[in-house]
Amino acid sequence: MTGIADVARSAGVSKATASRALSGSSQVSDQTRRRVRAAADALGYVPSTSAVSLATGRTRAVGVVMPYLTRWFFAEVLEGIQSVLLREGLDLTLYDARPGTEGRARVFEDFLARQRFDGLIAVGLEPDDHELERLVSIGRPVVSVIGGGEGTTSVAIDDLHAARRATEHLLALGHTDVVFVGGAGDGRGPSVDAIRLEGYRDTMREAGLLPRHVAALTSLPGGYAAAVDLLGDLRERPTALVAVCDEVAIGAMIAARRLGIPVPAALSVVGIDDHEYAEMFALTTLAQNPREQGAAAARLLCAHLGDPDLAPSTERLQARLVVRSSTAPVPGREGVMVSDTGLARD
Amino acid sequence: MTGIADVARSAGVSKATASRALSGSSQVSDQTRRRVRAAADALGYVPSTSAVSLATGRTRAVGVVMPYLTRWFFAEVLEGIQSVLLREGLDLTLYDARPGTEGRARVFEDFLARQRFDGLIAVGLEPDDHELERLVSIGRPVVSVIGGGEGTTSVAIDDLHAARRATEHLLALGHTDVVFVGGAGDGRGPSVDAIRLEGYRDTMREAGLLPRHVAALTSLPGGYAAAVDLLGDLRERPTALVAVCDEVAIGAMIAARRLGIPVPAALSVVGIDDHEYAEMFALTTLAQNPREQGAAAARLLCAHLGDPDLAPSTERLQARLVVRSSTAPVPGREGVMVSDTGLARD
Repeated sequence: MTGIADVARSAGVSKATASRALSGSSQVSDQTRRRVRAAADALGYVPSTSAVSLATGRTRAVGVVMPYLTRWFFAEVLEGIQSVLLREGLDLTLYDARPGTEGRARVFEDFLARQRFDGLIAVGLEPDDHELERLVSIGRPVVSVIGGGEGTTSVAIDDLHAARRATEHLLALGHTDVVFVGGAGDGRGPSVDAIRLEGYRDTMREAGLLPRHVAALTSLPGGYAAAVDLLGDLRERPTALVAVCDEVAIGAMIAARRLGIPVPAALSVVGIDDHEYAEMFALTTLAQNPREQGAAAARLLCAHLGDPDLAPSTERLQARLVVRSSTAPVPGREGVMVSDTGLARD
Repeated sequence: MTGIADVARSAGVSKATASRALSGSSQVSDQTRRRVRAAADALGYVPSTSAVSLATGRTRAVGVVMPYLTRWFFAEVLEGIQSVLLREGLDLTLYDARPGTEGRARVFEDFLARQRFDGLIAVGLEPDDHELERLVSIGRPVVSVIGGGEGTTSVAIDDLHAARRATEHLLALGHTDVVFVGGAGDGRGPSVDAIRLEGYRDTMREAGLLPRHVAALTSLPGGYAAAVDLLGDLRERPTALVAVCDEVAIGAMIAARRLGIPVPAALSVVGIDDHEYAEMFALTTLAQNPREQGAAAARLLCAHLGDPDLAPSTERLQARLVVRSSTAPVPGREGVMVSDTGLARD
């Protein structure tokens, strides 16, 4: 294996100079840098990153902390982050921080304190006060994708607006008995769920309608289970559902089919996400793009790494209504059915 | 921030000795080690891993290379790996190596060569000859989860056996017109798909039956699209499907329902995985546990890191038949229907 000593010898400089030249230090002349780089290339030398790290104070790695690896949203965000870091030549060090686990405590107490990264991206982390203190004390730039604190750099969709749009779409179709499915609804659970529920409730109340909420686990089986319970009771059955996300919406659609309730003829369902399964289930949804959110967060972090004085900023994306065939006018009002295009403009 | 100099001063030793003591070097007496550790604990010192890395030649990180982050199997394996590494105090550096992308080329040419890890776990990597050469040239232990080469340490289920069991289950129910859905079938694509197809073909031929194969993308929409095409043609419609994985199987079940084909009355479907959605769709399947495979791979890698002379080994797990209600006797043979328990023992 070629070492830095070989490169230094070949370029006719000291080891320290060779190391500085390869790490991009400004203490080395351009001419020397070129000579050292040429020598390194000729010898096929790849710098040991531990040595580079000590010389530059940079690890050339970005830490990504996220509570779930297997959920669609998080996996898509991770791919978006990875695509940008790969282009920038930065490593991605992954920290799994599932809420309430011993592993999460270790990530905050031990792993993050090692500072094996130049900056952090926190995805849906929703840190408690103690955890937030740990994050700040690391003294490295942090960018959040959903669930970040006030005054920090973050990327997210406008969840309040997305839930309002979803609810308004159903009201415009004449529905008055609309139930929100998903989230814990008791102030616990992810804040994004609570904000979406709030957007639905505000819209219902402003229209003089009674909001109704059914809790569900944030997953396809969670939506299925909640919908079976809700739709199985004929007296309680609404004509439309706003789901906290597409997985819950699709679970509810499958439940409706099992119960012999035709979608959208007897039940309209709208989600939030534009999940990879949404098209297959012809689900009307508020489309967001988590991969783009991950990429945006990685670009923001790179900007903060390049300029430590950069002020915190918030990148707020708008979800876009995509009308497919899981929503239709309320039964008895089919006469007002408009085209998909018409609905998309509503 | 407390530095190694503070610890050394407090313990009354040199910086070099303090560093050696904290990195577990054998050149330091137990008494000194205890004194330095006590000082480090009292001062709240967390070692910079770059410095530890140079002193020990260890990075305390494990690289994980995988082609997909968003697929169920890969995300589950990643969680299994992470759970073990977290306990061992090892960082997880993630490398996204989607086949045929520029990113994959960079991972092999650039990122892996930096050796920012003590060992690698390759998940479903299926390296070509050139990539395999790069992997070997790194000179660090590599453990594969599916898709590893001969003579390397690997963890996988017995795919041939799983596909045979799935096919035999249908034959035992009296089906003779059984189609295999999924995989490219032309020798390209993941070897695991090709092996499962082979297991199906062998079983059909041994029973004197004609194997039929329909290619599908390895996803729920992929299974849906392939099944719509296959089942839409009445003359070609089989009575049973073996799917390459549960996502394809569930896509096929949804397609059947859309086409008005009752499952299992008119069509039996069996998958391989026991995906998180399998229970909800009452899918009969050959259950594997990717999370456990990830954990097993991480444990094997730790063993190799602890003992460089350890011989390569293969951990071959058996998938287990789980009978739910997506499979039933061939139409016209309902009389031989046995209980789920009976089928589970077949």
